[in-house]
Amino acid sequence: MKKFDESGDNCKSAIDISKYGILAGISETIVSTGLDTPNAAPIGIIRRNQKTFVRIFKGSQTGENLVRQGVLVANVVYDPLLLVRSTFFDIESSEFDFVDIGGKKFPVLKSAISWVAFKCTNLKNMEQTVVSDLIPLGAGFCEANRGATPAPNRGFNAVLEATVHATRYQLSGDKKYLEWIMHYESLASRCGGESEKKAMKLLYEVLGI
Amino acid sequence: MKKFDESGDNCKSAIDISKYGILAGISETIVSTGLDTPNAAPIGIIRRNQKTFVRIFKGSQTGENLVRQGVLVANVVYDPLLLVRSTFFDIESSEFDFVDIGGKKFPVLKSAISWVAFKCTNLKNMEQTVVSDLIPLGAGFCEANRGATPAPNRGFNAVLEATVHATRYQLSGDKKYLEWIMHYESLASRCGGESEKKAMKLLYEVLGI
Repeated sequence: MKKFDESGDNCKSAIDISKYGILAGISETIVSTGLDTPNAAPIGIIRRNQKTFVRIFKGSQTGENLVRQGVLVANVVYDPLLLVRSTFFDIESSEFDFVDIGGKKFPVLKSAISWVAFKCTNLKNMEQTVVSDLIPLGAGFCEANRGATPAPNRGFNAVLEATVHATRYQLSGDKKYLEWIMHYESLASRCGGESEKKAMKLLYEVLGI
Repeated sequence: MKKFDESGDNCKSAIDISKYGILAGISETIVSTGLDTPNAAPIGIIRRNQKTFVRIFKGSQTGENLVRQGVLVANVVYDPLLLVRSTFFDIESSEFDFVDIGGKKFPVLKSAISWVAFKCTNLKNMEQTVVSDLIPLGAGFCEANRGATPAPNRGFNAVLEATVHATRYQLSGDKKYLEWIMHYESLASRCGGESEKKAMKLLYEVLGI
């Protein structure tokens, strides 16, 4: 396990999360939680009006872990298959590394390009969601994955959109989401690489279409 | 002006364009052409079945430059405003750097994260487009812009989709594209940062909506 305080980047107040890919607006990260049994799910990290916060469904494992342990890790990932897998399935423990920050072991996805560990504060209970402010505790890069920034790819983006619509379809059963998903499947097929096609195939299997 | 052959990365056959962000599928780059008077426009670089190629509208400045000079530079850019500007307007000469490759001056966008210069070969004249195979001649990073890979942002992606639909709307006048654009404006507004909002505002001005 890596010790974060050995990395030379351990000044909490000085962490500029922009440097780790978390910019203004909503960053679509894969959030890992669970200091004991790690879990991962796609979650948007929201930066607006000088604040960083997150809104998570209460019933989810991520929501339960957040309330129980008060921490999360936002992973910047460009792997369309992991995006779909982490939405609908449990991720194997072997897919996480653990990073020590202040004596706690934070789960970081091995396939992340970069990550930011946050403390969750000022929790607000809404009807279906919990909203939490986020204070960065640590951040880093997974050097093995730190290649060039991939050019924008409409196929990858289409997998992201399809995944969002798939979760809405599962919650509501509204057929309009299936039309969106089919639109984005076509885009992923035309503009994506093999990874995007595999991801959409898995998404279709999950939805039984 | 930089001399590419001083960079130590001048072995033509060894250029792995993946390392500069041009991956499988269609990479949505901003292509610069014109060794004398530089020009830029969003163009997809297609990688499929071990081939890299491009399909460009004949009537465009980029198409004319490609046929006349047989070279282009693919720039990896994550700037939503530049995406919209380069679609509908000329880009100032001051926004380009020139890189010397084999005695020719290639225009590279100053705001690129990375770039690949290509020779265009095996040109095929289609009805409305010219299709050209691409052979990498040189590649590099603009160190000033080489920060962290930004997390996926549905707002940025929405600007990209809206721009694609806007060009189709201008070509066809079909109102269905306006509905797409309005959908993506809403997404850019909810998920994007200030840059995405400015980019959509400009897009609306261009379309007069």
